[in-house]
Amino acid sequence: MQTDSTILELRQAVNAVNLELLTKLNERAALVAQIGARQTELSMAHFDPKRESEMLELLVSANAGPFSQGTVKQLFKEIFKASLDLEEKQDKPKLKYSRKAHPENTTVTVVRGDISVTFGGAHKVLIAGPCSIESAEQMDATAAFVKSQGVTLMRGGAYKPRTSPYGFQGLGVAGLEIGSSAARKHGLLFVAEVMDTRDVEIAAQHADMLQVGTRNAQNFALLKAVGQAGKPVLLKRGMSSTIEEWLLTAEYILAEGNDRIVLCERGIRTFEKWTRNTLDLSAVAVAKLETHLPVIVDVTHAAGRTDILTPLAKAALAVGADGVHIEVHPDPATALSDNQQQLDFSAFERFIADMGNVWG
Amino acid sequence: MQTDSTILELRQAVNAVNLELLTKLNERAALVAQIGARQTELSMAHFDPKRESEMLELLVSANAGPFSQGTVKQLFKEIFKASLDLEEKQDKPKLKYSRKAHPENTTVTVVRGDISVTFGGAHKVLIAGPCSIESAEQMDATAAFVKSQGVTLMRGGAYKPRTSPYGFQGLGVAGLEIGSSAARKHGLLFVAEVMDTRDVEIAAQHADMLQVGTRNAQNFALLKAVGQAGKPVLLKRGMSSTIEEWLLTAEYILAEGNDRIVLCERGIRTFEKWTRNTLDLSAVAVAKLETHLPVIVDVTHAAGRTDILTPLAKAALAVGADGVHIEVHPDPATALSDNQQQLDFSAFERFIADMGNVWG
Amino acid sequence: MQTDSTILELRQAVNAVNLELLTKLNERAALVAQIGARQTELSMAHFDPKRESEMLELLVSANAGPFSQGTVKQLFKEIFKASLDLEEKQDKPKLKYSRKAHPENTTVTVVRGDISVTFGGAHKVLIAGPCSIESAEQMDATAAFVKSQGVTLMRGGAYKPRTSPYGFQGLGVAGLEIGSSAARKHGLLFVAEVMDTRDVEIAAQHADMLQVGTRNAQNFALLKAVGQAGKPVLLKRGMSSTIEEWLLTAEYILAEGNDRIVLCERGIRTFEKWTRNTLDLSAVAVAKLETHLPVIVDVTHAAGRTDILTPLAKAALAVGADGVHIEVHPDPATALSDNQQQLDFSAFERFIADMGNVWG
Amino acid sequence: MQTDSTILELRQAVNAVNLELLTKLNERAALVAQIGARQTELSMAHFDPKRESEMLELLVSANAGPFSQGTVKQLFKEIFKASLDLEEKQDKPKLKYSRKAHPENTTVTVVRGDISVTFGGAHKVLIAGPCSIESAEQMDATAAFVKSQGVTLMRGGAYKPRTSPYGFQGLGVAGLEIGSSAARKHGLLFVAEVMDTRDVEIAAQHADMLQVGTRNAQNFALLKAVGQAGKPVLLKRGMSSTIEEWLLTAEYILAEGNDRIVLCERGIRTFEKWTRNTLDLSAVAVAKLETHLPVIVDVTHAAGRTDILTPLAKAALAVGADGVHIEVHPDPATALSDNQQQLDFSAFERFIADMGNVWG
Repeated sequence: MQTDSTILELRQAVNAVNLELLTKLNERAALVAQIGARQTELSMAHFDPKRESEMLELLVSANAGPFSQGTVKQLFKEIFKASLDLEEKQDKPKLKYSRKAHPENTTVTVVRGDISVTFGGAHKVLIAGPCSIESAEQMDATAAFVKSQGVTLMRGGAYKPRTSPYGFQGLGVAGLEIGSSAARKHGLLFVAEVMDTRDVEIAAQHADMLQVGTRNAQNFALLKAVGQAGKPVLLKRGMSSTIEEWLLTAEYILAEGNDRIVLCERGIRTFEKWTRNTLDLSAVAVAKLETHLPVIVDVTHAAGRTDILTPLAKAALAVGADGVHIEVHPDPATALSDNQQQLDFSAFERFIADMGNVWG
Repeated sequence: MQTDSTILELRQAVNAVNLELLTKLNERAALVAQIGARQTELSMAHFDPKRESEMLELLVSANAGPFSQGTVKQLFKEIFKASLDLEEKQDKPKLKYSRKAHPENTTVTVVRGDISVTFGGAHKVLIAGPCSIESAEQMDATAAFVKSQGVTLMRGGAYKPRTSPYGFQGLGVAGLEIGSSAARKHGLLFVAEVMDTRDVEIAAQHADMLQVGTRNAQNFALLKAVGQAGKPVLLKRGMSSTIEEWLLTAEYILAEGNDRIVLCERGIRTFEKWTRNTLDLSAVAVAKLETHLPVIVDVTHAAGRTDILTPLAKAALAVGADGVHIEVHPDPATALSDNQQQLDFSAFERFIADMGNVWG
Repeated sequence: MQTDSTILELRQAVNAVNLELLTKLNERAALVAQIGARQTELSMAHFDPKRESEMLELLVSANAGPFSQGTVKQLFKEIFKASLDLEEKQDKPKLKYSRKAHPENTTVTVVRGDISVTFGGAHKVLIAGPCSIESAEQMDATAAFVKSQGVTLMRGGAYKPRTSPYGFQGLGVAGLEIGSSAARKHGLLFVAEVMDTRDVEIAAQHADMLQVGTRNAQNFALLKAVGQAGKPVLLKRGMSSTIEEWLLTAEYILAEGNDRIVLCERGIRTFEKWTRNTLDLSAVAVAKLETHLPVIVDVTHAAGRTDILTPLAKAALAVGADGVHIEVHPDPATALSDNQQQLDFSAFERFIADMGNVWG
Repeated sequence: MQTDSTILELRQAVNAVNLELLTKLNERAALVAQIGARQTELSMAHFDPKRESEMLELLVSANAGPFSQGTVKQLFKEIFKASLDLEEKQDKPKLKYSRKAHPENTTVTVVRGDISVTFGGAHKVLIAGPCSIESAEQMDATAAFVKSQGVTLMRGGAYKPRTSPYGFQGLGVAGLEIGSSAARKHGLLFVAEVMDTRDVEIAAQHADMLQVGTRNAQNFALLKAVGQAGKPVLLKRGMSSTIEEWLLTAEYILAEGNDRIVLCERGIRTFEKWTRNTLDLSAVAVAKLETHLPVIVDVTHAAGRTDILTPLAKAALAVGADGVHIEVHPDPATALSDNQQQLDFSAFERFIADMGNVWG
């Protein structure tokens, strides 16, 4: 189609310049790698914005066109970035969450004594329990029930993030004790949310797994504290976090030396009104490509209604999630929080029956 | 818990008032139903905002409290609305898309001669083909290929909605002819998008199914024209349409007497950047509850990338979708539109293999 | 700070390579510009994805590292893009909406006989009128009233985009006649929305300015038809259009030879519930930088409530908008559409008083 | 228009029933108010979901139609809610942020010794300073400069919320000391962000005002701690908080007895890409209606670019904001965070000049 001889000749010339550019770019990359290695020796930062400014000024003052100064700056910023990325990749640990750093799936085992459950392995995991811990009776009934349904890991909130300060704020330490006792009595593991760096230690004493909720997804102080607590972490996606931001919240915990992290998609905030949030299962598919960490789906908070939980849970497993998180309460109508969206026991039994033999 | 005798007595009194209110409310509803029936006889509108204003004024002037005027207005608006809804339900056809009007699944059959495909029945349906119709060679190759992969319904755009007026706008009628010929030669059905009311007639002559795209989801003139065209319709959700708005776009077509509509979720616009749109599978679950019409999922436009199409398609079927829509092109890198997201033939073969025997 | 001698020497070497790269890049750009000029001569497309693929293959096969193949591809794609952008800038018309093509403000005058109003000039413009044209009495009253308040350009919808097919759809041609008559009688100009390519001609006969609404913002067939109609256009932003997409909808009209376009920001769809849409005044500020076309703000649809219209209108003018669009109705409570958000006459008088002497 | 005699008679009957309903509704409200007063005496919760369930069951079992059970439940839920709202309004404190509780504007004065600045009074307030505190030199230069430009309240981050754990995390306590010293030396007040409940005390020792950032907007533990710290609070809106949620974050601080709160709109997360966030000035207009607390606008984080800050600041003041927050840095290109969006000194001087004499 493009057989004009003038064009063909010019294209040959372009090809030659391309190859010269390639040689120079690789030459440059090798030099930058040497600088980076030396900086590491001297414990110096690798990125030096002042140096970049100087290089750009030199280039702009030498530029005779036809590229504009803006284009020259932009192209060299790309080249600088590629060189820096290259040397950082060679010289520094990659992002710990990335499959590039760790291609195989990480399995996360929550364990207490001889009870354990493993995320990211051969079996899908179901987490179930009430939104809030309200009383010993409620938790005892729930624990007995979910145990009977084959659940091993029970949730229950002792600290509740409520939009209003006058909403039920959770029972605090008393709630941790109630939840932990009910779990122990019925041979269950117990996961509880923590909201304050000052509560991490006490929560880690009672819970077998700590949850960071959606409103604290970018509470970086809490992420660091949880990373240091020595417990597996259930890490919810922020309701307005991009996938990249979500994975980087895991990096905060990984950077503290804790790789027992289970990521949890729970819906993002959009304009849609017939569901409480918009469940983003593409994010699960992308996360499973990008990270070796297990990923589960909280269908309850995504939906905010009980009539689509089974299809959402099936879709979550089909897209590759390692498990499902769901809320169940002995009497949802009288629950102190989220009373529109928790399943009662008989609805939970139907859910288990409808899902079939998927939990392994 | 609440055993204070004062409270118990007051509650008895409340119970009595409740029952009196109930009697009066039903009495009112019966009167309004009679008015509605008479209005239908006289071909009068049922909702009369002036009448409502007068009733509210009367009530406000009679109100002795303790309810404030605002609360009185609000409560009576609810009562007026409930009464009106009731009589409209009794007197008028319900929304045609609703399962309340039509509890059983509607099946939509696209047919030409002895070739046919049915949405909403026992089998899941796969629609495949290129974004744009570019040449007879491209469509011939694609048609032969998708036919060999078990596809019966081929897509291809002759009119292309492009963000820029300088982007490839499609081949128009010539494109319809190319697509239609390729489909006929290879024993396929052909679905094509239409964007202009003036093109509906010619498009209906060439295509076996007409598509309304996301940017025209609330182009109500087009919906009416398509409703009158006598062809099955593939109706995409608007990228910022709520589920309710999406279902009401189907109502526009139903209101023209055409119930051969296949709804198609294709992702909504959110803040997320690693996918082109955010696939909303909860919307599919909700739509399957609300409407009897078939619902499918366009995984290509939802993802905007090719590496998560298989898990998304699996999730779509798991959540209850009746089919999947996917783009395939002989040479995506040189495609005139959407060249980041179309599968090439070998990737499509892998997709078919990975999905397994789901298309029935 | 970074005075290590090894590093300083390596940096000198990098500087030298940088300058060699710069020379080669500009050499390449000059060659590509020659190719582009020749392609224009031959009426050939400038972007050739096949040629790009070939160049990348050649480079990848020649690449000896340390840059990875992925990085080489990415850097050269940037270089290709910069070269192409450069030659297109030199060779082709720039985007017509852009201030780069047309640095001075464009003024848009709507005129009929000796009545006229000019957007983008010294004076801010106020457009006012009811959502829907409902009757001759309603339009006569409104026209008399807005004229008395200093308004010159009256709006009124004859074709109404309604979410439900059972909502009031507008009076159609009869509505255009009513609106046009009322405007003529009271010495006003008249702007009306058009929704169907088939209605553009008749609408252009009655209205002095045609409006494209938010739901048809990416109805490209309509944009082209309106571009050909020879009338000024009020072009609303799509409720989920980015600023870039909005400006490109203007380009569709400009590409038809019509530059009498007034852009109108009217709020975008977000998660916020206390306003109907989220007014995006940053978009107005950015649009005023990017385009020479006038930009106004529809405060009514942005707010969806009447109690914040004055501050929003003040903010719109402060951010640089050339005018304001607002709805007013003789009796909003009984209006056939949008009855929560239209001002009544006395509220409109207060609005005019509160805004002060801003309309020039 | 509606003069049919059958209809007129039925309407008379409806009017009579309406008035009977009104009497019963008010009777019911009075009874519920008595129950509420008794519950307050006994320190019992007012809302009792069990009681509601019982009442609804009774009504449903007594319902003879024509209203469906669903409608009866829905109407009575509205009635229950109205009654409960009424008695809570009479019996309990209103929300402290609300103008219903406190109609007059609250002024918030930040003060140290004889330096002070007041939000919500006659003068608009400008907060300026760098994103991060990086060195004593940087803060000294900035403090001297902003003082010379008429600024009294300087910002500067010692704890930085960064998406990546490997980004600059701030200097911590050393940063607080640097910021505080620079402010004291140049006669400025100092506002600093706090991110961890454990840092509130030390931050309150150095800063004259504490900031809660957008990522911690729903970190309720932090809100409570800041509420107890005895310092004025600059409270940013969460990037995905509704206006209602934002006001309720203020309520958390108010509930701790601290009413020295300045609300700060800083843009919400949407699909738009040409600005970092979407500045929501309608939220400022609505907040000024709903709350007596001062409201300011952070134009820097809303825009994420420096070329539209002046029009955004003008629009912020025009919509009713009590001040503006803006970032300025001696050398933005080398800043350790946010280097695309901070003004340099000469650009800041132009900003001050362009804004004119608005800061009083």
